[in-house]
Amino acid sequence: MRWSCSREQSEEIAFDEVLFVSQQLLNPLGGKNLEQSFVAWAKMRAYRLPQAKLGIGDDAAVLANVGRDTVVTTDTMMDGVHFESGSVDARRIGRKLVAANLSDLAAMAARPVAILLSMCIPITDDPASDELLAAEIYEGVCQSAEQHRVAIVGGDTNCWSGPLVLSLTAVGEVVEGEIWTRSGAKPGDLVVVTGALGGSILGKHLDFTPRLEWVEQVRSRVQVDAAMDISDGLSVDLLRMCDASHCGAVLDLDTIPVAAAAIELSQNSGKSPLEHALGDGEDFELLIALPQDELAGLQAIVGSDKAIACGTFTSRTGLWAREGARIRQMAATGYIHGQ
Amino acid sequence: MRWSCSREQSEEIAFDEVLFVSQQLLNPLGGKNLEQSFVAWAKMRAYRLPQAKLGIGDDAAVLANVGRDTVVTTDTMMDGVHFESGSVDARRIGRKLVAANLSDLAAMAARPVAILLSMCIPITDDPASDELLAAEIYEGVCQSAEQHRVAIVGGDTNCWSGPLVLSLTAVGEVVEGEIWTRSGAKPGDLVVVTGALGGSILGKHLDFTPRLEWVEQVRSRVQVDAAMDISDGLSVDLLRMCDASHCGAVLDLDTIPVAAAAIELSQNSGKSPLEHALGDGEDFELLIALPQDELAGLQAIVGSDKAIACGTFTSRTGLWAREGARIRQMAATGYIHGQ
Repeated sequence: MRWSCSREQSEEIAFDEVLFVSQQLLNPLGGKNLEQSFVAWAKMRAYRLPQAKLGIGDDAAVLANVGRDTVVTTDTMMDGVHFESGSVDARRIGRKLVAANLSDLAAMAARPVAILLSMCIPITDDPASDELLAAEIYEGVCQSAEQHRVAIVGGDTNCWSGPLVLSLTAVGEVVEGEIWTRSGAKPGDLVVVTGALGGSILGKHLDFTPRLEWVEQVRSRVQVDAAMDISDGLSVDLLRMCDASHCGAVLDLDTIPVAAAAIELSQNSGKSPLEHALGDGEDFELLIALPQDELAGLQAIVGSDKAIACGTFTSRTGLWAREGARIRQMAATGYIHGQ
Repeated sequence: MRWSCSREQSEEIAFDEVLFVSQQLLNPLGGKNLEQSFVAWAKMRAYRLPQAKLGIGDDAAVLANVGRDTVVTTDTMMDGVHFESGSVDARRIGRKLVAANLSDLAAMAARPVAILLSMCIPITDDPASDELLAAEIYEGVCQSAEQHRVAIVGGDTNCWSGPLVLSLTAVGEVVEGEIWTRSGAKPGDLVVVTGALGGSILGKHLDFTPRLEWVEQVRSRVQVDAAMDISDGLSVDLLRMCDASHCGAVLDLDTIPVAAAAIELSQNSGKSPLEHALGDGEDFELLIALPQDELAGLQAIVGSDKAIACGTFTSRTGLWAREGARIRQMAATGYIHGQ
């Protein structure tokens, strides 16, 4: 685990230098004198969370045992696939990277503890802009980490001739023994989502809030049979939950919450708003399998706009769509047969 | 955390398919019938280690709490920087990826528990060769994981138009409360390394053994004041340990263990074998700060070829080289001033 940045394995950019650029971003008047205080502050920020016994700067980080099981997840994001570095503030990319991993922890009902960041920074002819990119990403990572009280405990930063690649690992803990998997859905359970879906490409895919607060409110107060986050679109992810749970599901098309962005996108996409809600990815809402008699209690806690029932799990496998009295088979893409 | 492989976000390669290719590698006669048994076997292999409560297949993995602090590290390796995918068996790359992370855990005196693998697989015109590459890397990862009793609990696999990028996170546990950091070296401690150095580019950088067994033998039997693994070369890494420990070190040049590969490399490199031993990276031996009166005991346990004293930590900061009676300053590159 290294926090130095090797340019073609020869010239090195120290972590401190990256932080120094970051500090300049934060404070345009920042000079060399402020550098040390910023570095001291940044390291302190990484260390001061009690869960990090040993943070940035050694071969590995040490997290204090608090008597709970550990939950761990990783996500990699590449330029041109998960974001377009040329057209987006790099801080948003850093925030998305953290949020996407924390969304995975939320989907398990886990509480985040720490993150590790790996960066492959592309080398250009302008070293200052390379460092600025690294610093802005790190700034976004810090913002999101601070927002969610997560310690940044380490990482690995490299420069290379390829495109920007970011990889983040998030470590969390199981709270009160409760883990939500995607395999516990039962026939009769409601299909519940935590917010409106579709059109995330217009902005939400970069700026979403992982549903950690929702989980803190709901955990141990409501029986959740299964959960996952919606990263590849409701229909694809619901089918995955069905497969893992050995059941099927019927979606009530009229009740699926369609985001305003899905409507906006449909004006030029040739798809309906519903198709966007079913098929677009990166909503990062949670998909929940909920016993029917838990719905009222859940809505009383989180609000009815954050617990929207839009279907029912069935013993018959596969994905189905109900519109009025008609039930038709649905493809994982959201395509409805015989429509 | 996804174990599917999205080709430009449309076509998907399932994890099972990657395993299927892997199975074909293992068994050239393998057919569709063997696929399912291989997948079942591979998943079982990931699950059967008791530390993995929940492994591959959900949003995150769950590791059982065993009452110990958690140690976590991550390393990213890129084609053209850390390996050359065109000229190396991909299984060796997979093994190196695991071994480099386990070496970081060994340097902390930690015991490995689980790993998560992220892959960015380049798309070529030949999908079968792309899948073969992913499968061979995975095969190497599995081999190394099995060798060291580490559970593969998750990851994230993506295809893209860029070069091969691999990122691995290793989770370990602190045993008997013992953590070796790089900041504990004391003036008077010996500089000790666990094996011969230099020339790793000739092969060892891909095929080294992380010093986990060494650590299991030594932990709680010998007082180790500081430790790190030698990834960027003895002189660079020793200087890092000195900086972290607020001290300096004098290397006894005559006692530095020079690998046969360093001698071989020196025949055409224009450098001396010693310069290779001091400056080459990726030895992945451990660098230890050891109280002088612990050396005999350590050598009795691991053998004198695996505990080689080659210098002394000093209160005077910086890196120094002793040759006979002369002491000169040394650069982090291994360059000795006034030589």
